[in-house]
Amino acid sequence: MKRPIALALLGGALLMPGFSPSLAAQSNFVNTLMPEPAHLNVGSGSLTWNTAVTVGLPHFKNQRLEDAVNRTLEQIERKTGVPRQRAMTTSDASTLSIDVDGAGEEIQSIDEDESYALNVSSTGIKLHAATVVGAMRGMTTLLQLIQPSGNGFVVPAVQIEDSPRFHWRGLMIDAGRHFEPVEVIKRNLDAMAAVKLNVFHWHLTEDQGFRIESKIYPKLTEEGSDGLYYTQDEAREIVAYARARGIRVVPEFDMPGHTRSWLVGYPDLSSDPGPYTIRREFGVEPVAMDPTKESTYQFIDAFLGEMATIFPDPYLHLGGDETPGTQWKNNPRVVAFMKEHNFKTTEELQTYFSQRVLQLAKKHGKHMVGWDEILNPALPTDAIIHSWRGAKSLYDAAQRGYQGILSQPYYLDHMKSAEEYYLADPLPPGSGLTPEQSKLVLGGEVCMWGEHLNELSIDSRIWPRTAAVAERLWSPENVRDVDDMYRRLGVESLRIEAVGTRHLTHEGAALRELAGTENIDALRVFSSVLQPVTFGQRYHEQRTSQLTPLDNLVDAVRPDPPSRHEVALLVRELLKSPTAHSDARAQLSGMFQSWIAAAPKVQAQMDHAPLLAIARPRAVQMEQLGRIGQQALEYLGGKKAPAGWKKSSLAEIEAARKPQVLVVFTVIDPLAELVNAVK
Amino acid sequence: MKRPIALALLGGALLMPGFSPSLAAQSNFVNTLMPEPAHLNVGSGSLTWNTAVTVGLPHFKNQRLEDAVNRTLEQIERKTGVPRQRAMTTSDASTLSIDVDGAGEEIQSIDEDESYALNVSSTGIKLHAATVVGAMRGMTTLLQLIQPSGNGFVVPAVQIEDSPRFHWRGLMIDAGRHFEPVEVIKRNLDAMAAVKLNVFHWHLTEDQGFRIESKIYPKLTEEGSDGLYYTQDEAREIVAYARARGIRVVPEFDMPGHTRSWLVGYPDLSSDPGPYTIRREFGVEPVAMDPTKESTYQFIDAFLGEMATIFPDPYLHLGGDETPGTQWKNNPRVVAFMKEHNFKTTEELQTYFSQRVLQLAKKHGKHMVGWDEILNPALPTDAIIHSWRGAKSLYDAAQRGYQGILSQPYYLDHMKSAEEYYLADPLPPGSGLTPEQSKLVLGGEVCMWGEHLNELSIDSRIWPRTAAVAERLWSPENVRDVDDMYRRLGVESLRIEAVGTRHLTHEGAALRELAGTENIDALRVFSSVLQPVTFGQRYHEQRTSQLTPLDNLVDAVRPDPPSRHEVALLVRELLKSPTAHSDARAQLSGMFQSWIAAAPKVQAQMDHAPLLAIARPRAVQMEQLGRIGQQALEYLGGKKAPAGWKKSSLAEIEAARKPQVLVVFTVIDPLAELVNAVK
Repeated sequence: MKRPIALALLGGALLMPGFSPSLAAQSNFVNTLMPEPAHLNVGSGSLTWNTAVTVGLPHFKNQRLEDAVNRTLEQIERKTGVPRQRAMTTSDASTLSIDVDGAGEEIQSIDEDESYALNVSSTGIKLHAATVVGAMRGMTTLLQLIQPSGNGFVVPAVQIEDSPRFHWRGLMIDAGRHFEPVEVIKRNLDAMAAVKLNVFHWHLTEDQGFRIESKIYPKLTEEGSDGLYYTQDEAREIVAYARARGIRVVPEFDMPGHTRSWLVGYPDLSSDPGPYTIRREFGVEPVAMDPTKESTYQFIDAFLGEMATIFPDPYLHLGGDETPGTQWKNNPRVVAFMKEHNFKTTEELQTYFSQRVLQLAKKHGKHMVGWDEILNPALPTDAIIHSWRGAKSLYDAAQRGYQGILSQPYYLDHMKSAEEYYLADPLPPGSGLTPEQSKLVLGGEVCMWGEHLNELSIDSRIWPRTAAVAERLWSPENVRDVDDMYRRLGVESLRIEAVGTRHLTHEGAALRELAGTENIDALRVFSSVLQPVTFGQRYHEQRTSQLTPLDNLVDAVRPDPPSRHEVALLVRELLKSPTAHSDARAQLSGMFQSWIAAAPKVQAQMDHAPLLAIARPRAVQMEQLGRIGQQALEYLGGKKAPAGWKKSSLAEIEAARKPQVLVVFTVIDPLAELVNAVK
Repeated sequence: MKRPIALALLGGALLMPGFSPSLAAQSNFVNTLMPEPAHLNVGSGSLTWNTAVTVGLPHFKNQRLEDAVNRTLEQIERKTGVPRQRAMTTSDASTLSIDVDGAGEEIQSIDEDESYALNVSSTGIKLHAATVVGAMRGMTTLLQLIQPSGNGFVVPAVQIEDSPRFHWRGLMIDAGRHFEPVEVIKRNLDAMAAVKLNVFHWHLTEDQGFRIESKIYPKLTEEGSDGLYYTQDEAREIVAYARARGIRVVPEFDMPGHTRSWLVGYPDLSSDPGPYTIRREFGVEPVAMDPTKESTYQFIDAFLGEMATIFPDPYLHLGGDETPGTQWKNNPRVVAFMKEHNFKTTEELQTYFSQRVLQLAKKHGKHMVGWDEILNPALPTDAIIHSWRGAKSLYDAAQRGYQGILSQPYYLDHMKSAEEYYLADPLPPGSGLTPEQSKLVLGGEVCMWGEHLNELSIDSRIWPRTAAVAERLWSPENVRDVDDMYRRLGVESLRIEAVGTRHLTHEGAALRELAGTENIDALRVFSSVLQPVTFGQRYHEQRTSQLTPLDNLVDAVRPDPPSRHEVALLVRELLKSPTAHSDARAQLSGMFQSWIAAAPKVQAQMDHAPLLAIARPRAVQMEQLGRIGQQALEYLGGKKAPAGWKKSSLAEIEAARKPQVLVVFTVIDPLAELVNAVK
């Protein structure tokens, strides 16, 4: 444990039998917790997890709690191979005693108490929480604590007092641009729960697709979804599934822009009669709802009323982003309306729209969330600002009294590393906010926009990177050790896979399909050092649309695969004593050799795989990079580099750095560092 | 093509432009079709699959056909990366013209016409079928024909006239002993369609679980399912999903034995008042329904009537297997009933039961299928005999005028190789049946019993082996070339993965979970040469029950992985000229070296992985086998083997042959052959 432990907060726990805060006693505890708890103290010894473990709910219990306990026991059973106890007692003397004060909120709000205390000694585990959701968070931690020891598994003695730093810890999934089936949503909810995220923001409507059934306005899906949408029953099932895991569901109905799919069935919602078709291209679309017609608000009113019967959450996301005034400016009636109301700009007209829909949201008992474009002097302060254009708008909003949520640094389609997302704090020291204003920053949301993904690739775009943000939003501000985060992320990635996500299996399946063979060992080496280019690079290079097949190498490879941080770490380690016969040297050498060996095999496979063949230059570069790496190791080891080697090698590295065939190498920087270190 | 081509049957197709039956012209066609069509002729040239390909339904069309066409085009799009045409024409002049005579049967029967003709020239593709189901079979073939060529994909010029050898080509999934979620069933239906199977036999009730909702008898699932069952809506969804793919759904309600889960909620169905609990153990259970009470038949009558509203198929499977008379013999009332009816044995009492339920099935418009125990002199000949105890009972039945289905050689849990299943013919030359009697053999069914599988492992137990049986049941009797089957099976395995099954991804996910790390290269080598022991071996060794965690190495490894046939093939190849520096020698040597290199890494990982650690002796053996293989190559290459080497090596091989930690090596026989070939 690198962080100071707030012993004071542990209170009576210090007196528990088996507890001893000496360093020696901590030796058998390997911390793989993610997110890190607020307060952790490591005791001595551990509890053996075997068939004798009994489980008790001594005080409160309800179905939601029992289901959560059963899920946890099932996960532990699978991890340990120890058959679980099926019967739960009400005894305080059970090995695992889950002591919950009460059910918690009937509709989980932003204020739900998620705190818990977990005390493990060599004889028993006590989990205490005020609410069922708190107990779920504690059980997640318990599952993460279980570790191998000798021939079996143990729970190391620890005391944990934990509660989240931010109350709003979300993941947004865009099911509009590409539909995501119910099972995809469910497994991602399981993964969210595994890292204690608590808001699923469901982006349900887009220019490219309207994804939620309306019985009042059936043409929304009949004509605007290509038949790909969630029925109301399915949406309710998702809401229940999320609630069972302590996750709120905030639906988004983006308006007045991003609404072309609505207009296919209901063109009257717009100021231009249409007709409209589902949009296939991406980017900002010039159509929007007409904010000047009362019929627009009547439609929205009825629609939101219907949606309120499906989504009980008190928050409702109404979008508000990227609304160009094109249609409005071209319509004399709208222009006259603006004049009449003294609106100088279409932004002001949009604010009028925001005010009206905020009232409708209120009417249906909802707080309105909107993307940061809605922030405008006339906007009532009970709107919540969701910042996607920069943290500044979040702080501006807070200074003006608005609550806010940060997403700008957490766009997964920017294909940044887990490290970059991890270090982006919603409330960094320099935010300039007063403590009161800081409280208005509710938290953050990871955004998974859907242009370039489908149900096969989505998991690998979300996980494991999102787990790093989950820690940022849950754990104390000073938990910022990147190496330690990656160490734990590697373990967390497997725990997330165990709940059913396919972020680790997709790559292999996609490579087999690309290559047309089960023999993909060499291709696995190849893809291990590649990652997708950013959203923008792909969009501009490939001119993608909703109809673009997503079956290229770029769709197979993972963002920020382990190679990126591993090679950087090994190079850093090696450069501490470049001539030594170290582990780092051996590992790097093995890696470089594997690139050299794999490259010709990959190229041979490309002869029979047209969709792979365009990546041939990348395979050639992988071999070059491997040779340069091997040479650098030799020259760092004492052999003299030939004249010009450094310059030519760096030139080759820089050539390989460029995005090409929609992928980039993950190992460029440390390789350049290695070459630069050669005398 | 190794089989003679029935040119006569191709008729006018021979005159099509671009057709030339010369051998040279066939060179660019690589046959990966599975199952092999009845008649195939290869032309010259090919059609380029690009965005210009148009699709037409010139004559009949309905939603079912259009959906099937769209699914096919989507699969082709993904395989080729060529965006598909979204609009279908009614023109005969489309590149791909799908000419269907009519809808086919409203409820697909055993007599549905599945034949089709597919003619591909360099300018167009004509698919003709009498029915929509026939068209589906043809589209499956079309998808399989597409192959890489240069920078893109082509459809080679061929003429195919195809229809199945057997009308009943099934897969049974046991959802009773372990529940399988809806998505598991759906993806397996997709895989079935990919190999032209047409019957999904859904084993829905077992001692260990009652899996289908009854609204009339709600306690069946409330008390007999652990909450794991299909709602009626879900079952209807599965039936519709199957129908959309030309697959019939035959539900099985096993009775009078295998019914303990029924009795939990309805103990009166039995002759012993109970109370009953869900059974956790496997094997034959001594409880059964009471065949002497009229109330039993009233219950079954009402239940079957309800089920008939969900399952439209004219066939109904009523089990009838493994019914011990224990309870009956112990009940004086039942004994008195037997005496009264002059039944000497409980088998006769069961036949009485079979006659009664057959009448009930008839009442609800169904033919009754039963396992071969029901075959008894008094059984009406309109029952269908499903043979699981041996082909002999099938032929006996046919000789006595019963229709029958063969499953005995197709039990997947026997963990046999694809080869063994493949070579087992339902109507081999020695069946002793007359042509008339042979017609009573409707086909066969692959059986996936559920004792030792869960939703994670099931796909890898079913696929790709089931594809080999699918070919046996569809293709002409003389299609029996095992090497060629394995060559095509390797390709088919990927096509099945592309429809969504996890038979190839499960192994990696399970190994990661077992090892607790993403670094499983060495473990992949280890598992590549292992396969599960048979059902019986595992059951007796582990004393499994429904509550046994299925998270061991045996659950990760695949039955009949590629290594088994590959190594055998390479050894056969090498032994043709043992001293030559052949490809076979190089490949075998590479393989043996990989075993030697992986073994210590695997053992090191076992130090931190308790569930893997029990397999340590297997890792040691893998290294030994690798060394023996390497030595054999040297000695076959000319070097002299030391005295005693052969004997001691064969002893080590034989020691490694024994089942241990629930797995067996796949490479024992060819290794022994190699050693034995050393002079």
